[in-house]
Amino acid sequence: MKNTFGNSLTVTLFGESHGPEIGAVLDGLPSGIPVDEAFIAERLRLRRPAGSISTGRQEQDPFRIVSGVFMGNTTGTPLAILIPNSDVRSRDYTFGPARPGHADYTAHIRYSGHEDYRGGGHFSGRITAALTAAGAILLDALRKKNVLIGTHVARCAGIDDAAFSENPAADLERLNASDFAVLDEKKGDAMRESITRAAEEGDSVGGILETMALGLPAGVGEPWFDTVESELAHALFSVPAVKGVEFGDGFALADMKGSEANDPFVMKDGKVATSTNRNGGINGGITNGMPVIFRCAVKPTPTIRKEQRTVNLAENRETMIIAGGRHDPAIVHRARAVVDSVTAIVLADLLAQRFGTQWLA
Amino acid sequence: MKNTFGNSLTVTLFGESHGPEIGAVLDGLPSGIPVDEAFIAERLRLRRPAGSISTGRQEQDPFRIVSGVFMGNTTGTPLAILIPNSDVRSRDYTFGPARPGHADYTAHIRYSGHEDYRGGGHFSGRITAALTAAGAILLDALRKKNVLIGTHVARCAGIDDAAFSENPAADLERLNASDFAVLDEKKGDAMRESITRAAEEGDSVGGILETMALGLPAGVGEPWFDTVESELAHALFSVPAVKGVEFGDGFALADMKGSEANDPFVMKDGKVATSTNRNGGINGGITNGMPVIFRCAVKPTPTIRKEQRTVNLAENRETMIIAGGRHDPAIVHRARAVVDSVTAIVLADLLAQRFGTQWLA
Amino acid sequence: MKNTFGNSLTVTLFGESHGPEIGAVLDGLPSGIPVDEAFIAERLRLRRPAGSISTGRQEQDPFRIVSGVFMGNTTGTPLAILIPNSDVRSRDYTFGPARPGHADYTAHIRYSGHEDYRGGGHFSGRITAALTAAGAILLDALRKKNVLIGTHVARCAGIDDAAFSENPAADLERLNASDFAVLDEKKGDAMRESITRAAEEGDSVGGILETMALGLPAGVGEPWFDTVESELAHALFSVPAVKGVEFGDGFALADMKGSEANDPFVMKDGKVATSTNRNGGINGGITNGMPVIFRCAVKPTPTIRKEQRTVNLAENRETMIIAGGRHDPAIVHRARAVVDSVTAIVLADLLAQRFGTQWLA
Amino acid sequence: MKNTFGNSLTVTLFGESHGPEIGAVLDGLPSGIPVDEAFIAERLRLRRPAGSISTGRQEQDPFRIVSGVFMGNTTGTPLAILIPNSDVRSRDYTFGPARPGHADYTAHIRYSGHEDYRGGGHFSGRITAALTAAGAILLDALRKKNVLIGTHVARCAGIDDAAFSENPAADLERLNASDFAVLDEKKGDAMRESITRAAEEGDSVGGILETMALGLPAGVGEPWFDTVESELAHALFSVPAVKGVEFGDGFALADMKGSEANDPFVMKDGKVATSTNRNGGINGGITNGMPVIFRCAVKPTPTIRKEQRTVNLAENRETMIIAGGRHDPAIVHRARAVVDSVTAIVLADLLAQRFGTQWLA
Repeated sequence: MKNTFGNSLTVTLFGESHGPEIGAVLDGLPSGIPVDEAFIAERLRLRRPAGSISTGRQEQDPFRIVSGVFMGNTTGTPLAILIPNSDVRSRDYTFGPARPGHADYTAHIRYSGHEDYRGGGHFSGRITAALTAAGAILLDALRKKNVLIGTHVARCAGIDDAAFSENPAADLERLNASDFAVLDEKKGDAMRESITRAAEEGDSVGGILETMALGLPAGVGEPWFDTVESELAHALFSVPAVKGVEFGDGFALADMKGSEANDPFVMKDGKVATSTNRNGGINGGITNGMPVIFRCAVKPTPTIRKEQRTVNLAENRETMIIAGGRHDPAIVHRARAVVDSVTAIVLADLLAQRFGTQWLA
Repeated sequence: MKNTFGNSLTVTLFGESHGPEIGAVLDGLPSGIPVDEAFIAERLRLRRPAGSISTGRQEQDPFRIVSGVFMGNTTGTPLAILIPNSDVRSRDYTFGPARPGHADYTAHIRYSGHEDYRGGGHFSGRITAALTAAGAILLDALRKKNVLIGTHVARCAGIDDAAFSENPAADLERLNASDFAVLDEKKGDAMRESITRAAEEGDSVGGILETMALGLPAGVGEPWFDTVESELAHALFSVPAVKGVEFGDGFALADMKGSEANDPFVMKDGKVATSTNRNGGINGGITNGMPVIFRCAVKPTPTIRKEQRTVNLAENRETMIIAGGRHDPAIVHRARAVVDSVTAIVLADLLAQRFGTQWLA
Repeated sequence: MKNTFGNSLTVTLFGESHGPEIGAVLDGLPSGIPVDEAFIAERLRLRRPAGSISTGRQEQDPFRIVSGVFMGNTTGTPLAILIPNSDVRSRDYTFGPARPGHADYTAHIRYSGHEDYRGGGHFSGRITAALTAAGAILLDALRKKNVLIGTHVARCAGIDDAAFSENPAADLERLNASDFAVLDEKKGDAMRESITRAAEEGDSVGGILETMALGLPAGVGEPWFDTVESELAHALFSVPAVKGVEFGDGFALADMKGSEANDPFVMKDGKVATSTNRNGGINGGITNGMPVIFRCAVKPTPTIRKEQRTVNLAENRETMIIAGGRHDPAIVHRARAVVDSVTAIVLADLLAQRFGTQWLA
Repeated sequence: MKNTFGNSLTVTLFGESHGPEIGAVLDGLPSGIPVDEAFIAERLRLRRPAGSISTGRQEQDPFRIVSGVFMGNTTGTPLAILIPNSDVRSRDYTFGPARPGHADYTAHIRYSGHEDYRGGGHFSGRITAALTAAGAILLDALRKKNVLIGTHVARCAGIDDAAFSENPAADLERLNASDFAVLDEKKGDAMRESITRAAEEGDSVGGILETMALGLPAGVGEPWFDTVESELAHALFSVPAVKGVEFGDGFALADMKGSEANDPFVMKDGKVATSTNRNGGINGGITNGMPVIFRCAVKPTPTIRKEQRTVNLAENRETMIIAGGRHDPAIVHRARAVVDSVTAIVLADLLAQRFGTQWLA
């Protein structure tokens, strides 16, 4: 479905990095969900570049909702959010040398030379602002249904954050209030230092995001092909720079024995639970009531100031490039807000499919 | 879309492990693709359990195509393949104790107690036979268009296979002719030994599959949300036991600098190429003409003979289980045929979306 | 979505007139719906040709359900129904002269010469047997939820049937028990006579089917683009020979004044109702709680024994054709079973989208 | 898919009658289609109310395209068009009495009291401005591929327009240049007189639109369920006030013999054609290369100034209503621009599915 994702509940994205506006349309929403614009603004703020560890592009993201909300609540008809692109310096971008690791070349081939090449065009991370805003509405709605979602920078520039504690709900609350989402602030300081160092070198670093969703009822998802893993991975792999996704113990499960990897079922407070959670809350593609846990590998920002070998697409010959424009020495810490929104959209859709759209209201 | 996957070209799965027949419907096929039943049979053979390292369930998979083929070619109308379940021992399965790591519990909740619990029902790996058969038709069609797909057991029971060589086309050819798909036969022997040992312990092992697709033109895929990674991951995560998917260098990219992770563009034989392939042939979600490479983490088979703690779903109380029924001490080596078929289906769909359905014919 | 219809609940059709089997896959069913095979058989019988007014092709339609049912109830996983084609005389059909009014020519172009041309192949009315069987499961489920569906031959060969009475529930019950579905048996006798006369002339006649659905709650459907009219018309226009669909007073509304066409709202037994029903139970694309009423124009069977001018597709030159094979002098009376099934599928899908899939169980 | 229509090429609508902006997103466009803003403005003008025969609401529809166009051509990424609602008098609308024939009541039930009830909200004909603008881009693209689309008011207030002439291409050209689209201007004058008279009575009239699409290649469409009729009817029945759709001779076919209804195939200029076109250019759901012809029944505008019986939804009791707000005594003549756009969207999508998206570029 190209730029639309979802089944019962869908999100459609449009816009280019240097066009006048970007936006998202949420369709299939229940009627009667309160829309808290301050919460959306806060989520956009978490995604926004900040200080020395981010791009110089500073936008206040003054979004406006032009449909689907009436008297503060969703109407159930399509909700369109628009965000103008105010701080655009198109002169920083000219067509020619393809930035390695970026979509300049593939966009050029995919769209037969008609792509808006300025700042990555429709491929730009800028578009995730619209995605973040749309997802914020569902993050908020899910929270009111006791489904809590949060993400931490589990690893950045080779530095590991602490693991989730015995009280993950408190962890998530703390993460969602934090500008640089780590469970161990000291590790966060070290990560920021590494990002600053990479920036000074004109280079960039990557990392791993770990997301948890608490409070999902058992029995959500489909066996084929819309497993919870399938739906989440589908959406996550469209977030720019995500190159790996794993659930529960993920790749580490490949080295375990069955007797280690299986999560024993136990009775807990009169309900079925598992005593470990190596499968990340999902069995056979369907939630089992335990926390859903997954990790995304985020590659280092491809746009760097270091000189790189590349091809000039206008002239079809090799050249060197030192990327102009403003850019981030890391995006992993900003991507957490995008990943939270994506997770909210996917889970809201799966819940709507299982229990009907109005379940969320 | 639940049990249907794809956009221009779709596959729909149906059937239960112990029902009379399983099947798949391929829709959106071009007309005029030759259908080679011997090739389908060969691909089913590669998926089938074999010898001491597999389940005792032995089925010849005598599939039949009941529609969509006329005079040896696809008609372009839906192609339905059916495979009878002949070797079924339903008495091995009774409802009650949920097998840890399996879908018994989640199926019970998802379907409100109406699930066919025998042998995993619709969640069974058995269903992948239909998927393998359907995908084989596209594997064959893609091969004729010079798009080659192949998978090796890159890791099993902690043992690494060799990496792809400088001649990946030859590697793929060899893998597709091999019953136990490794690039280094000695590593394969060691893996098989470990599998046998696990079987003797009543336990199971997992592994990692690495897949390569050669010959894809640049410019296939979508920026949002149907990136090549999104579409492949969506389908792959519905293959039972897959818990992680990564593209190119995947999770290892998280630890690199941008200057390391970016693949420099070069001119090669008058065409744009990259000198490294850390991004797995995909930039911005779209193929760049380099080999598409990804890895799937396959967890150890959940059904084991060792005693495990669990819950009896019929009585809602804790109990111990020693799984009855026949089972595999590893499925990673069998899953390669499934992953090849899934890959063929996804890539054929993406190619059809990009160039029109008849491109494949 | 080509051969798949529906959103939350989908039906996929496959098969050719002269292939070994035809079939349908229902996906997105709730778990726990009782499946009454005798009822399915009865609905297939109503669709089957009978006596002198129908084709000589006589099939018992011994369907089998190969998945998705366990212990007499739907499991919630895909339900596949297969019907073998037993009474096939392929020798009656050879490729060459295109039957006017039929899909021979368009299929030949659409599928680039690879179509199964025998008996209309995938375009054959034969495929409606699978559709009728799949829909019968939902007709039955809806009936248990007090949603009653029935169709009469409102017009055939220029003869009008009586209109629905003041007691439409009783009308529907009577129609569903009747082999030739009319409200006035005398009109039915006259219609049958006309059909027989047309058969004797080697010609065929058409007619109009009028369908009513009672008991639908208000508030089902979408404003854009999935209005109740849109969804029903989409499915109905894929029933072979349907060339017109109208809701409520349909085309007659075009000649009314607004003051005549508007159905006044009234309070009835404490609920909102309308005092007339010129809009066929649908306002703004959404059910208003009144009976949903629509009519389908069914053209005369294109396959006739009279000599017709046409083109030989194998030789690309004009020729004359006297259609071989068995054929019906009318299909309007048989199509009623197909239209009922189609209606049940569409309404069940719309209800599932509005209230969640399990609403039907 | 709710507010999204299409397969390869989709349109998504959002907005409310009295919200700040309405809009549409076109996705799946080929790259490189020239976008002629003057042509879009002209199509919006044809849809706009004009003079005494239309509502007093006068909007210049100053649309803006915020994405998907670069240097005057489509980029191939989503194209979003926005139109502000400038001339809004919300005070004319208060919640309470449901307008008969309108969606006030059904919207109230569908959205559980959260609907934006002002001016029909998301159900308003106002939304068709966005649809008209989006479709105009495809109307223009199709015209450049020699696919011509046009619509006339075939009947209004009981007055019939002339039929298409022997030179339909010239007819379409003339219609597309005409503000009140009739083939016989005198009939148009009479229609306008009737509309004015109805307006004076505080009442409204309906009519029938007849649309022709010339130049479609044979072989477009699907047998099940996406026949050309199915796709067109699906989209057309979501245009407000359309209550009937028929193809070719439509309902009149029900009274014909097969020998009359069948269009004989003939060879014409070395190509297969039909000597009559009673099937409206479609056999078996697929284009046969002849003009595609269909008619839509448009009911009289439900909002009238005459006193009508209704229910006050706020108080759940019967009342009388004299509709406030501005309204049209007829919309059939304005709907022609909407129907042309809808037709262009559907046909472009079908062509893209058949020949690949880039066919249009």
